Amino acid sequence: MSHYQKLVQHTLKIANFNHLAAISGWDQAAVMPSGGNQARSNAMAELSVLLHQLNTEPQLGDWFAQAEQESLNHREQASLREMKQRWQQANVLPQDLVQAKSLAGSKCEHAWRTQRKNNDWQGYAKNWQEVVNLSQQEAQIRAEANNSNNKDTNCTPYDAMLSLYEPGTTTQSLDVVFNNVKTWLPNLIDSVIDQQAQQTIIQPQGPFSTAKQKELGLEIMTLLQFDFNHGRLDESVHPFCGGVPTDVRITTRYDEADFMQALMGVVHETGHARYEQGLPKQFAGLPVGEARSMGIHESQSLFFEMQLGRSPEFIQHLSNMAASSFSGHNDAAFSQQNFQKLYTRVEKGFIRVDADELTYPAHVILRYEIERDLINGKIGYQDIPELWDQKMQDYLGISTKDNYQNGCMQDIHWTDGAFGYFPSYTLGAMYAAQFMASMKQSVDVSAAIQSSNLAPIFNWLESNIWSQGSLYNTDDLVTKATGEVLNAEHFKRHLETRYLR
Amino acid sequence: MSHYQKLVQHTLKIANFNHLAAISGWDQAAVMPSGGNQARSNAMAELSVLLHQLNTEPQLGDWFAQAEQESLNHREQASLREMKQRWQQANVLPQDLVQAKSLAGSKCEHAWRTQRKNNDWQGYAKNWQEVVNLSQQEAQIRAEANNSNNKDTNCTPYDAMLSLYEPGTTTQSLDVVFNNVKTWLPNLIDSVIDQQAQQTIIQPQGPFSTAKQKELGLEIMTLLQFDFNHGRLDESVHPFCGGVPTDVRITTRYDEADFMQALMGVVHETGHARYEQGLPKQFAGLPVGEARSMGIHESQSLFFEMQLGRSPEFIQHLSNMAASSFSGHNDAAFSQQNFQKLYTRVEKGFIRVDADELTYPAHVILRYEIERDLINGKIGYQDIPELWDQKMQDYLGISTKDNYQNGCMQDIHWTDGAFGYFPSYTLGAMYAAQFMASMKQSVDVSAAIQSSNLAPIFNWLESNIWSQGSLYNTDDLVTKATGEVLNAEHFKRHLETRYLR
Repeated sequence: MSHYQKLVQHTLKIANFNHLAAISGWDQAAVMPSGGNQARSNAMAELSVLLHQLNTEPQLGDWFAQAEQESLNHREQASLREMKQRWQQANVLPQDLVQAKSLAGSKCEHAWRTQRKNNDWQGYAKNWQEVVNLSQQEAQIRAEANNSNNKDTNCTPYDAMLSLYEPGTTTQSLDVVFNNVKTWLPNLIDSVIDQQAQQTIIQPQGPFSTAKQKELGLEIMTLLQFDFNHGRLDESVHPFCGGVPTDVRITTRYDEADFMQALMGVVHETGHARYEQGLPKQFAGLPVGEARSMGIHESQSLFFEMQLGRSPEFIQHLSNMAASSFSGHNDAAFSQQNFQKLYTRVEKGFIRVDADELTYPAHVILRYEIERDLINGKIGYQDIPELWDQKMQDYLGISTKDNYQNGCMQDIHWTDGAFGYFPSYTLGAMYAAQFMASMKQSVDVSAAIQSSNLAPIFNWLESNIWSQGSLYNTDDLVTKATGEVLNAEHFKRHLETRYLR
Repeated sequence: MSHYQKLVQHTLKIANFNHLAAISGWDQAAVMPSGGNQARSNAMAELSVLLHQLNTEPQLGDWFAQAEQESLNHREQASLREMKQRWQQANVLPQDLVQAKSLAGSKCEHAWRTQRKNNDWQGYAKNWQEVVNLSQQEAQIRAEANNSNNKDTNCTPYDAMLSLYEPGTTTQSLDVVFNNVKTWLPNLIDSVIDQQAQQTIIQPQGPFSTAKQKELGLEIMTLLQFDFNHGRLDESVHPFCGGVPTDVRITTRYDEADFMQALMGVVHETGHARYEQGLPKQFAGLPVGEARSMGIHESQSLFFEMQLGRSPEFIQHLSNMAASSFSGHNDAAFSQQNFQKLYTRVEKGFIRVDADELTYPAHVILRYEIERDLINGKIGYQDIPELWDQKMQDYLGISTKDNYQNGCMQDIHWTDGAFGYFPSYTLGAMYAAQFMASMKQSVDVSAAIQSSNLAPIFNWLESNIWSQGSLYNTDDLVTKATGEVLNAEHFKRHLETRYLR
């Protein structure tokens, strides 16, 4: 057996255990009674120890060195590259740093759940400075490793964290696109809010039973060609897309007073799910057969939610289906026009997760700029509240002075040191806009949606994105699909077309 | 760390992986879409390989030898005894025999699914003789090991198989109780059928919606004090009780034409579940903290289903609750008297899983006598159809001549070589009757059920059975609880009291 084949076998073994971790994790979030949590956490921790052992087995370094000398075809070379990157990321950190960060992160996150409610920045900062410190060490080590592996790059500490979620994307390229967005977004937001001030909107009046909402969600998933032979819809407190590509588990959360959020949440998660379901089956269990990056994953969920789901033609379907599910309700509230207004309402707010399509990038760029400078050591953790307030004023015109709970303490990401993740959200939104612009050159998207046969749209995504897995780096994937690398102009044009009248 | 402590740690590690196997198995049966099956089966097979490695690690033999020299208290000694028995059972067979039996069993079981429908005994026998042959080899090796471990016993091959499910129970003791049953059961069945011939019974008329049946099942589980903080009710094709003691997953199957079977199925599985939920928490994850045997497990489900569930007082609750769930139906069908008749109807039939309380033991004794003689080499596999026919005529007065599909080909157990399991069903029924007889000496069972506060009943089971785990062998457990070892007279008296008027 070649060393490449040995690596493939070992990686498939790891995939089998990751499968069990994914299903146990879904179970814990979606169906497990709370009394089962302690034993489940123990079992999942045991599995993590095993996975760490498998990912760091000493002979792997030798196998990679040998495999790189073997004669491999193009796809095998891509597969080897992805396996090696995974292995390097799992092995580069000293074990005591991994454990220290995990402990400090758990401690900080646990206390944060109370401290946030109490607006207790001082208490939070006491735990968090250790998380920041350890994350800076992690970033430094990862950057050095990246630089010694590739003499042509100059990887900064933050670049190294970014590459955990967006391999190939650099601070340099992000600065270009995000600086572009910053030149037009604040003015666009103001103009749109001005225009919308005159709108009359009718809020549909509930209650909307969970059972009916679930039926409606399943109906939408059917329209979106979700494969129910390879997946399910369930409920959880925090909606997510989990499971494995052969069995994708999406969840939503129902509010009997408002069905519209859960409904669009299902559309969003179905985007993630169809990407997973459409990944190349010949590479099942191998990194090269997995999603390209968090940003590309988010591009699919946001393609479904924003590009497809908020198009006038799709909203026509949504409003028809919702009206027939919740008959007896005020007709005007269920009109296409009213749904369109509800689903494109723009408001300036403090909270990222509640933000609309137009203000969301402002929240992300703010976090990107702060975490970039924090991890690169240009600012300290104690500088953040003031920077946050200043950037909120610059980008959205609202102040978070002394309002830590709705400012820099609002997100879970930083509490355990997940620095480098935030850009993915807005990268996803931008890629989605670019994919739609490119798709429209060959597909009559509007006609496809109107006809309720969305296959031409999904065929484009499947052949250009889903079936490509991680065969190409992000720039190549996007260039093959759209003829150019990431270009923020598509996003700008999309927002102006949708929001400016 | 003492060697005993090392063994405990290793066993808890195994328990963590068994936890993942239990939850993945539940998921596969209860919620997994069918397209996920191949990848799931691969993942679970990988986990089995790991568990086999952990159960057969070479240093364990030394650890057991050392631990037996260490100073241990009574409970630790019991824990060590149970860990060692588990280890011996996992290590005694040569690996090639385990694999050969697994392969032959899978092949036979797979073909059986079609062969049974076609009444194809010849085709079945071709695969099955290999399963029998390998099972005989397995039994021989296990018996020799048992005899060399304990010079005082004379363990037959069948005894060795029996001890996998009923450790401590021997052919000798089973022959005594089953021969006792055979002296009175056939006549009792005839008398009861004669008496019931005059009965008028009304079948409740459906449809009964799945949603309402599920609500009713949850209501009954609440009455039975199922702990929903540590368990769930779901659906599956074959009802079972799975999961782990901190998170017990029971399932049922709904038929909209008939709610009564699913309802009593829920009562049965709740009996299994409460045993699991009541196991001693200080031994969680250790064999000594697990259920004593399959027969004792079945004694709890049958205590719930037969002793408690079919008592006139409990049936009064069932009929009231069902009538209020399915209001609008014919009142007479939902009377206590009619429910009692429906739930105690006796009929001679071919199929064990469809048998009633009274005829069920005949099916089990027949299988026991045949598998005992087959594994001990006193008969050959080709003798079975004739023996089956003859015993069916002797015990139930019906013939299975040339009717293999409803005769010796009806059960899945033998297809993959699970010889020694069948006695557990009737042992469970007998233990349940004995527990009830003993409980009635200190608990006013009838009053407890009538009052809807069943705590006194469950307290007796919890302190005498559930909380004892595997601290004692079965004879000692039963003697501590009831003052004597298994005594078939209690079962006889129970059946006569219930069925003879």
